[in-house]
Amino acid sequence: MTQIEHAKQGDLTPEIQQVAQKEGMEPETLAQLVANGQVVILKNSASSYTDAIGLGKGLHTKVNANLGTSPQFPDVKREIEKTRIAVQAGADTIMDLSTGGDLDAVRRAIRQATSVPLGTVPIYQAAIETATHAGGIIKMTVDDLFAVLERQAKDGVDFFTVHCGVTLSALERLRQQGRLMNIVSRGGSFLITWMIANERENPLYEHFDRLLELAHRYDIVLSLGDGMRPGALADATDRAQVQELLLLGELTKRAWEYGVQVMIEGPGHLPLDHIETNVRMEKLLCHGAPFYVLGPLVTDVAPGYDHIVSAIGGALAAWAGADFLCYVTPGEHLRLPSPEDVRQGVIVARIAAHAADIAKSLPGASNWDLEMAKARKQLNWKKQFELAIDPELAQRLYTEATVQAESSEEKTQTDIHISEKEPIGAEPCSMCGKYCAIKLVEKALKDVKPLA
Amino acid sequence: MTQIEHAKQGDLTPEIQQVAQKEGMEPETLAQLVANGQVVILKNSASSYTDAIGLGKGLHTKVNANLGTSPQFPDVKREIEKTRIAVQAGADTIMDLSTGGDLDAVRRAIRQATSVPLGTVPIYQAAIETATHAGGIIKMTVDDLFAVLERQAKDGVDFFTVHCGVTLSALERLRQQGRLMNIVSRGGSFLITWMIANERENPLYEHFDRLLELAHRYDIVLSLGDGMRPGALADATDRAQVQELLLLGELTKRAWEYGVQVMIEGPGHLPLDHIETNVRMEKLLCHGAPFYVLGPLVTDVAPGYDHIVSAIGGALAAWAGADFLCYVTPGEHLRLPSPEDVRQGVIVARIAAHAADIAKSLPGASNWDLEMAKARKQLNWKKQFELAIDPELAQRLYTEATVQAESSEEKTQTDIHISEKEPIGAEPCSMCGKYCAIKLVEKALKDVKPLA
Repeated sequence: MTQIEHAKQGDLTPEIQQVAQKEGMEPETLAQLVANGQVVILKNSASSYTDAIGLGKGLHTKVNANLGTSPQFPDVKREIEKTRIAVQAGADTIMDLSTGGDLDAVRRAIRQATSVPLGTVPIYQAAIETATHAGGIIKMTVDDLFAVLERQAKDGVDFFTVHCGVTLSALERLRQQGRLMNIVSRGGSFLITWMIANERENPLYEHFDRLLELAHRYDIVLSLGDGMRPGALADATDRAQVQELLLLGELTKRAWEYGVQVMIEGPGHLPLDHIETNVRMEKLLCHGAPFYVLGPLVTDVAPGYDHIVSAIGGALAAWAGADFLCYVTPGEHLRLPSPEDVRQGVIVARIAAHAADIAKSLPGASNWDLEMAKARKQLNWKKQFELAIDPELAQRLYTEATVQAESSEEKTQTDIHISEKEPIGAEPCSMCGKYCAIKLVEKALKDVKPLA
Repeated sequence: MTQIEHAKQGDLTPEIQQVAQKEGMEPETLAQLVANGQVVILKNSASSYTDAIGLGKGLHTKVNANLGTSPQFPDVKREIEKTRIAVQAGADTIMDLSTGGDLDAVRRAIRQATSVPLGTVPIYQAAIETATHAGGIIKMTVDDLFAVLERQAKDGVDFFTVHCGVTLSALERLRQQGRLMNIVSRGGSFLITWMIANERENPLYEHFDRLLELAHRYDIVLSLGDGMRPGALADATDRAQVQELLLLGELTKRAWEYGVQVMIEGPGHLPLDHIETNVRMEKLLCHGAPFYVLGPLVTDVAPGYDHIVSAIGGALAAWAGADFLCYVTPGEHLRLPSPEDVRQGVIVARIAAHAADIAKSLPGASNWDLEMAKARKQLNWKKQFELAIDPELAQRLYTEATVQAESSEEKTQTDIHISEKEPIGAEPCSMCGKYCAIKLVEKALKDVKPLA
């Protein structure tokens, strides 16, 4: 039985109890959300690797890091290093999107390197193996595809991105409408190449029941992929995208009837003023299923800064109700992410997630900020570094400047107070030095009652 | 006569014509907005340095970069270098916030180094000079303060931050309420130190008419400062902050009656869900005067990443109607910004501003994105780098990976297509390599009509 089936019966599985404890939620409340499909529990039932996590309504916003080899970077060691970095930086899940080297070996190595839930896009391996061994993706059979799904399921993958909504009808809508960037989803592009060459329906749609049977066996969460996601602001929220979303809503219901957990993937490139609408559309058309967004990227013009562009969109999306943010790295649109790109991507996505959790008033979310503000008021640098989302960076920026300043500090000016110095336990930073507002006001307002 | 006085008479001054042309707006429309106080034109009427710019309703969101020496970094050369970097990165204005070294010399050097409008916070110089020469800021006389204002005005400063709303009544509200971080505004802290020690009202409030007379003479825009801005999420949108805003609205009306241009400064540290409310409050309580925000910072926990934290808040604020974003650098809360901090700060604030301009449907705002999307579809890397907000970074990230990949590329896998390669004029990046979705779909969907 899957988590959703247990939850419907009111069973509090060990996974539901673990997740409820992590989230500070009553297990009964969580079970109800899982039963309704509003929360998914990521944990392959045959896997001994995964520590279960939950995604969805009322839970903390989670962050995924995409990793994996490419034809130009097939080195598995580099991806294991990235896995370590991503998890250390706070990624809640990892997706292995490998397309280069021995795909089974890479996936198994990543699986063994971490206990966070692991996702994949199985069409990659099916397409690439067919291309390699049979001379082209279009020779892929339905059995080839399901053989890969089964192999990955056995290896302990916890969630699959499956682009079931890239159907002939969605494609027809795309043709009629026209689009600037067409399709930028790699999985979507593999499927479309196959569908057009073979003049056949998407096998993940046509054989959706077979997919459900497999997902049910391993309790793999189906992440219904957005193959039609816009790849440019100009294509945002168009008919092709919404047509796919309608289909995903239909498939969500079918999955729930089969006892399979589902989440929905979303765009992509969206102007700021489309984001809330997209989140609301997903929640309504897909009956409250958790929403997993890539970005959204709120401008197309900032390659090298797309982690930041995505943090703007991601914070707004998560505040509006998105549950799961796929990180975007500084390398997006330019290259396979480097290890440092991965680290930056995870931290910046966590900032967006945390900002949204505060705005959603999630229990405990703002306590972290309160502790930081107290440390800041005390000019307690050690505590500020400990509390920082990236302690090493905070300490390095502060220290670099302090060391530089020692050689150049003005010795001539007198202190701004008439009387003696009254340090409040520590020295200010190099921005204001002795003109530190916190120190001045501390003295001037010593009779103001503290709030906390 | 000032720009607002000219505009009220329907005069289309050279500055209004220049700004209208830059913004793609009819000069008559712009003059009406200036007359109403909804737009300000930054240009000291006695200055030969400044190229006028406009800030406010219907205009593109602008970005300010704060520069200036500190006691620990009094070196003027470093600040001139930062000025050059900030302007090159696209800053629309510069503020000289120097507190170290020869303050007149630093300001004049920065003034001569750029033609973008220059702002200052004159209380810094007045306080620091008094501290240095008279032994403490509390000895400052009202004439000392106005002598500094006059000197800076003569030097060609275009806008002054004046914390006129830090009054005894606002302070009393702060005392009654309590606060976690009290006051984090440096200008506010100087004034409060003076007010409490002297048991007198804020001289910038008490002598507001004298300030107006001076601002009128040079057509300096008064940027009514937010000395009570929250320095932590816990203090956001509290009574002290809103009390100050009420006073600033009152002073806005008085300034307009005197023919002086005004904008309003705003927070600070605000959770995402406070931002739109704060912008609306400012626009309503201050009668549509342009809003100049610092941040807003949507979490306290990310020192080292506060440029990003601020971009999240700034994009949302500008979309909600804020007109002018003060950049925040990675060094915020940790140190005086380094030259590279300045560059990062400007670019990231410009991303936020641009994302908001797209969402506000400002004329031409999304054309840039459209051009980038076209270059991306063509895999035209040269064009993508040219269009990137930071061309050097985009090219460097792409090239680093390409060079690394050459030594490691897989040679064994065949192409995913059965037939010959059909490159579309260029090679994909190292993320997908030969599995590039754009290339695959270009071929599969060659009969889909292009949108643009």
